[in-house]
Amino acid sequence: MVSELGPIDRQRCVELDRADPLAGLRDQFTMINGLIYLDGNSLGPLPAATPARVQEAMSIEWGRDLISSWNIHDWMQLPAKTGNKIAALVGAGDNELIVADSTSVNLFKVLSAAAQIVRRDAPGRTEIVSERLNFPTDLYIAQSVALANGLTLRLVDLDPDAGVAAVLDDATAIVLFTHVDYRTGRMHDMADVTDAAHAAGALMVWDLAHSAGAVPVDLTAADADFAIGCGYKYLNGGPGAPAFVWVNPRYVTEPQPLRGWLGHAAPFEFSPEYRPAAGILGYQCGTPPILSMVALECGVDTVLAAESHGGMTALRAKSLALTSMMMELLAPVGSAHGLRIVTPAEPSVRGSQVSFSAPKGAYSMVQALIARGVIGDFRAPDIARFGCVPLYTRFVDIWDAVEHIRTVLDSGEWREPRFAARLAVT
Amino acid sequence: MVSELGPIDRQRCVELDRADPLAGLRDQFTMINGLIYLDGNSLGPLPAATPARVQEAMSIEWGRDLISSWNIHDWMQLPAKTGNKIAALVGAGDNELIVADSTSVNLFKVLSAAAQIVRRDAPGRTEIVSERLNFPTDLYIAQSVALANGLTLRLVDLDPDAGVAAVLDDATAIVLFTHVDYRTGRMHDMADVTDAAHAAGALMVWDLAHSAGAVPVDLTAADADFAIGCGYKYLNGGPGAPAFVWVNPRYVTEPQPLRGWLGHAAPFEFSPEYRPAAGILGYQCGTPPILSMVALECGVDTVLAAESHGGMTALRAKSLALTSMMMELLAPVGSAHGLRIVTPAEPSVRGSQVSFSAPKGAYSMVQALIARGVIGDFRAPDIARFGCVPLYTRFVDIWDAVEHIRTVLDSGEWREPRFAARLAVT
Repeated sequence: MVSELGPIDRQRCVELDRADPLAGLRDQFTMINGLIYLDGNSLGPLPAATPARVQEAMSIEWGRDLISSWNIHDWMQLPAKTGNKIAALVGAGDNELIVADSTSVNLFKVLSAAAQIVRRDAPGRTEIVSERLNFPTDLYIAQSVALANGLTLRLVDLDPDAGVAAVLDDATAIVLFTHVDYRTGRMHDMADVTDAAHAAGALMVWDLAHSAGAVPVDLTAADADFAIGCGYKYLNGGPGAPAFVWVNPRYVTEPQPLRGWLGHAAPFEFSPEYRPAAGILGYQCGTPPILSMVALECGVDTVLAAESHGGMTALRAKSLALTSMMMELLAPVGSAHGLRIVTPAEPSVRGSQVSFSAPKGAYSMVQALIARGVIGDFRAPDIARFGCVPLYTRFVDIWDAVEHIRTVLDSGEWREPRFAARLAVT
Repeated sequence: MVSELGPIDRQRCVELDRADPLAGLRDQFTMINGLIYLDGNSLGPLPAATPARVQEAMSIEWGRDLISSWNIHDWMQLPAKTGNKIAALVGAGDNELIVADSTSVNLFKVLSAAAQIVRRDAPGRTEIVSERLNFPTDLYIAQSVALANGLTLRLVDLDPDAGVAAVLDDATAIVLFTHVDYRTGRMHDMADVTDAAHAAGALMVWDLAHSAGAVPVDLTAADADFAIGCGYKYLNGGPGAPAFVWVNPRYVTEPQPLRGWLGHAAPFEFSPEYRPAAGILGYQCGTPPILSMVALECGVDTVLAAESHGGMTALRAKSLALTSMMMELLAPVGSAHGLRIVTPAEPSVRGSQVSFSAPKGAYSMVQALIARGVIGDFRAPDIARFGCVPLYTRFVDIWDAVEHIRTVLDSGEWREPRFAARLAVT
């Protein structure tokens, strides 16, 4: 077998890991011996630093210093501090991005703000445009905001080669796309799509759930309007970690409807009149969950640690090497069993995962792999999905994972009753 | 000095603590030696069980079992499980209450649902009525929901002796009250106010931030329509702990606008069409912050531990004994210095705190007390506030706190420059 990496066998993978300048970053995580974890696109693993830091937040900050910790341990500043760290990963300026609430709640904020802009500045435009296969929560929130604002949600099945301009027109008010598709790993060209939205006269909202910390993102260069993203996938912030929200400075004074006391200019005046805080601080709502916030900062730090090793450029290069290798190794294995790799072969439109469709048994294949210690996940209706996260995934992990996939397929063990298909979180 | 508790001196307080059947519950908390913590109405103290439980959630569940923990450690069920525990404290039925998001976000959900009901069933009604001195986040969210639904927010200055009916009329669509006032500790009669709202043809929404775990609450008996509340005060869930939301079963199928994927009937179908989950599960939105959720459950358990010692009835009796004693001891101390106790003397309308107004220096008095290890807090413009939480507050703590207050006032030390007034989180 020949690839860009040279002929591949397990020994070659061991050598690639040995030569990998990012290899040491894996030590930032508590990895489980014997487990090949290819699900960091669903839940990033536990950073080694997190337990001690959360313990400190519990015992010293909450336990000993109690309510004073809002000041003396800067709990009040955590959403902005961690937000600035994430900003550096997605091409946002200082104090333009903040951590708050969940991805869904933040999407409600930005879509509501965008809808207000449309109603005022372009009342003839009536549609929010998104992709039918976008992550469902995006569509549910968009439906809700559309309903509340006299708009409609139009779902398009985008021809990936035709470009987005073909589906936009004078009725388009807001374009809501997820940058990297959660099922296939296909990645949009952020600048091109944003340009097309703007050329059509629409606002551009990006969901960065599968992008932040995973691929290079430059919201400023793309001149996007709004963005939201997730803390618990590639940012390693822990289960259900708080999410983030970014607003282009030109729109940051637009009101968002979740006007909570922490988004007030002076929360401790306890004024009955809402006066939004300056800038992105006004996109905060209620009191943030500090223990989860503290864990998120540790997670973001694991990505920022790559800065001294080439940063996102180096991470991206390794990510593409991992996914390219996995697709190359999978191709002959899968074709014999009717699998179809749905992740793009073209690197420029690929995120940091590899997915295949297996109409006859993706769920049970994933279950059989989990039983073998290879953790990927299933996404309905027929997708098996494997995150290749360069911070901690080794080339040898990819080799071994594909060998397990080969064995599961060739032996037919995925057909065993204990792996029988059912819908579940895997 | 003579009170219902008999003549009070420090020795008598020691005896009261010795005879207190709830005294052992204090051992559930990590209390700091030398600190008199009277701010549990702002941030409950750290339960002794929380660090180990959160550590387990980090190391075993997240760290070792990773994504499978959503199933095998029941992360998916945590919001409903902890919700049912809180339900038992506020007179809600099983599966009627769920933990989710923040108090502010939950208020947005229930007010939006209520506004939809009004628009459909009582379109002539145009006003959300609340109290001018309600906690600001409630007013901000109410303003936002009013604006989005063609309603107006009318703020009333309620005469506590006149009753609420006098301020309601045919225009009243929704009544939004906080059960226990965060500044004064005045408590509404939940059944009476709810009856008045219903008699006026309006829906009744309760904010239980200073009630849940603090005073007896019976949402079912009062036949309230919606309620929300806070996890980090009397429920001891930790800084910024997730909040809760309850909906009367007769309205639980009303749509709420924050339609996230976890509120879907079958989240893992990944259907583009939103189909709300049955019952209160549909009031979930995004993925919950598990570390903070786990800490909240530990906190709620500290309140439920009172069940075997007389439960909320016993807690309420001790709470009133603590607050009555504090007010009785404070009265002669404060009157010499122009302090005015603003917490009601009448037990039936008192929450679990004691507050006084000190127009000349409440902030610096609180700071001087903090320097002495007596932790209360300041609320603008002129309120010093002391939570008396029967789970862990001792009679002797109240005695000692009042002695410190006396010293601070008599010596004039609160006028020292280091205690100079400024607005801050205390």
